[in-house]
Amino acid sequence: MNRKMIFYMIGRILQIEAGLFLLPAAVSLFYLEKSGFSFLIASAAAFLFGFLLTRLFRPSDSMIFAREGFVIVAFAWILMSAFGALPFVISREIPSFTDAFFETVSGFTTTGASILDNVEGLSRGILFWRSFTHWIGGMGVLVFIMAIFPSESGRSIHIMRAEMPGPIVGKILPKIRQTARILYLIYIAMTVLEMIFLLFGGMSLYESAVYAFGTAGTGGFGIRGDSVASYGSYIQWVITVFMLLFGVNFNLFYLILVGKVGQALKSGELRCYAAIAFLSVAAITANIYSLYGSFSHALRDSAFQVASILTTTGYSTCDFNLWPGFSKALLVLLMFVGGCAGSTAGGLKVSRLILIAKMIRRDLRKMIHPRAAGVVTFEGKRVEDATLNGVSVYFGVYAIAFSAILLLISLEPIGFESAFTAVAACINNIGPGLGTVGPAASFSFFSLPSKWLLSLAMLLGRLEIFPILLAFSPSTWRKR
Amino acid sequence: MNRKMIFYMIGRILQIEAGLFLLPAAVSLFYLEKSGFSFLIASAAAFLFGFLLTRLFRPSDSMIFAREGFVIVAFAWILMSAFGALPFVISREIPSFTDAFFETVSGFTTTGASILDNVEGLSRGILFWRSFTHWIGGMGVLVFIMAIFPSESGRSIHIMRAEMPGPIVGKILPKIRQTARILYLIYIAMTVLEMIFLLFGGMSLYESAVYAFGTAGTGGFGIRGDSVASYGSYIQWVITVFMLLFGVNFNLFYLILVGKVGQALKSGELRCYAAIAFLSVAAITANIYSLYGSFSHALRDSAFQVASILTTTGYSTCDFNLWPGFSKALLVLLMFVGGCAGSTAGGLKVSRLILIAKMIRRDLRKMIHPRAAGVVTFEGKRVEDATLNGVSVYFGVYAIAFSAILLLISLEPIGFESAFTAVAACINNIGPGLGTVGPAASFSFFSLPSKWLLSLAMLLGRLEIFPILLAFSPSTWRKR
Repeated sequence: MNRKMIFYMIGRILQIEAGLFLLPAAVSLFYLEKSGFSFLIASAAAFLFGFLLTRLFRPSDSMIFAREGFVIVAFAWILMSAFGALPFVISREIPSFTDAFFETVSGFTTTGASILDNVEGLSRGILFWRSFTHWIGGMGVLVFIMAIFPSESGRSIHIMRAEMPGPIVGKILPKIRQTARILYLIYIAMTVLEMIFLLFGGMSLYESAVYAFGTAGTGGFGIRGDSVASYGSYIQWVITVFMLLFGVNFNLFYLILVGKVGQALKSGELRCYAAIAFLSVAAITANIYSLYGSFSHALRDSAFQVASILTTTGYSTCDFNLWPGFSKALLVLLMFVGGCAGSTAGGLKVSRLILIAKMIRRDLRKMIHPRAAGVVTFEGKRVEDATLNGVSVYFGVYAIAFSAILLLISLEPIGFESAFTAVAACINNIGPGLGTVGPAASFSFFSLPSKWLLSLAMLLGRLEIFPILLAFSPSTWRKR
Repeated sequence: MNRKMIFYMIGRILQIEAGLFLLPAAVSLFYLEKSGFSFLIASAAAFLFGFLLTRLFRPSDSMIFAREGFVIVAFAWILMSAFGALPFVISREIPSFTDAFFETVSGFTTTGASILDNVEGLSRGILFWRSFTHWIGGMGVLVFIMAIFPSESGRSIHIMRAEMPGPIVGKILPKIRQTARILYLIYIAMTVLEMIFLLFGGMSLYESAVYAFGTAGTGGFGIRGDSVASYGSYIQWVITVFMLLFGVNFNLFYLILVGKVGQALKSGELRCYAAIAFLSVAAITANIYSLYGSFSHALRDSAFQVASILTTTGYSTCDFNLWPGFSKALLVLLMFVGGCAGSTAGGLKVSRLILIAKMIRRDLRKMIHPRAAGVVTFEGKRVEDATLNGVSVYFGVYAIAFSAILLLISLEPIGFESAFTAVAACINNIGPGLGTVGPAASFSFFSLPSKWLLSLAMLLGRLEIFPILLAFSPSTWRKR
């Protein structure tokens, strides 16, 4: 285990975060808010701590392997969240460190669950930072570093693997830095495109940035108490479309960019994702139509909520907690589906579900014809046994983590539905659940231990569990 | 596909069922109840239909393989339930065929979910049959046939594999008929032993048989509206102990019988099962103590409910629906655990969970030390990759089946908690859930389609999904 390299990399990451604080500081300055100082203090603290780490742990050997990648990612995300919480605490806008940490983890992991009961009371700089964390966390902090620092590229594949969600089918491009750059450029371009569409809808530049950040990262933080409900239908449709776009595998956008549109549209994951979205919107529209009376309104609310939950964004245009049981159950199931692998969405990912379904079909076929070949193919390629094993073991570790957290959250007197969906909303990085954690409510009433536990759930979900397990497993640190 | 053999075997099974009807008929006769006639009519119908099948489909070739085993088991269970429902309908004690079918499936699959709102209004013969189906279904109908008919033994391994719950680790004894006989003898001996203990507690012979059947099959049907609540603490403890015993892998009792006590006690599955039971009882006792005030009462109710849910029996001594959220959530999680493989219990089975945990540990180890050997051992033996794959794929198909049924049951206006636990209680073959399907309630209020759907869930759970999928998959029947 290359410990020096781990601490050195974490130091570098905190220095990057110090730089990122300057953007919300500028926003605060522009609006002449005193919250600007809190960003400068936090920036100085992150820079100093990062600087110390890079000085104390000068690696003689820069080689790292998968395990170091996992550990770096786990600790980087925890420390970034701790430092990211500082502006909330220093500005006294979220005085409790637990609350501020929860909010920051929720931001970076693109969950969007909030402990704020009155979001409109916060300063613009602070709200900008809160949404900016979504944007940073969506594509991944370490991917960002790889995109801009050429020196790191040699060892970056393990870090990228650890931070990118979803199973990895097929090879990652050998030129990892170039890939990271292309992904980030697409990410930036699509964010700007959404901002332009939102500006046309009458949003201010500030508002459009906040909502574009929340959509791009599939996060869900906004600046109004009712999320997106009080915006007009044009803006709601724009956000619906962009949420769905940001739930698509970014490699497909790359294919489209280089002219391979046909190949992109043939993607099995994309087709399945589109089918899930379409069928869910149709089913919910039919189910809630009698409640609404207006078809276009029912369709708009249904499409928005399906896009929001499926892509694990978490924005809402209505209190779906008041919908009939069928629609609510469908939304709960969509919470677990999540978007495509290689997108900014959370959840289990469509490709994992496809692979599980294909494994079931393979095993059924083998029961009927024992001599049948047991090959699983996906996107035209044969999937290796190690990948299939990884997918099914992930289901197991996910179920165990979910159950353990659900059991502890059930110590809160909130009932089964609220406890279940609170855990589902956090571990799948969505935001709102049902019942007492519905879209009209917040997570503020939870006890301190529960807030820490749900913060852990968000991190487990975003990093897909194994990095956190490895970072805190004694055998990782034992010398061989 | 040897179709003739499939129908021939199903015919044989229905003839056996015709014989089994004579026992409740005798009970009815003893109590001079006119429900006795309904058993005779049902017996004649089952015998005739079975006779016709064996005549029409005289197999020229008696060879069968795994796929035929699955299909025989699936159709045998469905037809046995259809004929088993006849006495309820003919006697007009459960006039609706849907209700009677639900109740019979619930009996054979050892679920114990009931559509009866007033169980005490039924005749003794009918209630005896209802509980006797638990006993028959617990160990398996086809295992029973193999135990008594020497002629079937050559082809029985595939049928036994299809009907026995849990993953199969290691070899099944080559002498399958002998194994089936030994298992049945142990089953009978333990049932009689429980009856003796219950008789000592003041139960009548009839009562003791009904409750011993319900415990042995881990079913849960009783003859009182309050399940076991109104019996004394001696009887409650006896049932607690026997529920836990019937959740143990029967191979361990065999080992103990032949003097290998040490080897039996070393079983990893047994130890894990005991640990889960002990820790759950301790946690719930602590959680409900303030509600009860009396430690011994809290311990007794906690131990009873944990044993009942963990072994998927479903008896109750109190309305745990009124317990705090933590205890309820723990019970919900135990619903999915289930008993040991090779017992009469349902659920996912302790051994499956152990294997998943071991696969997670193996993968973690491989992330830290990529050159580490990726071997999983269980009960001292190396587990083959095909078995591990089967375990993880089962989780996938189970989750998908659960989700689909949950979605459709959510069309009922009962809320998420009730819908979720109704499906969990049926697919894991438990019986009561929470909310509107709690231990103090029944399944009578469900719509007809939901009752059929929950009947399917019970069959899927008891037969571990694949036999049903195969039996209704077109490619099973297609000629190659």
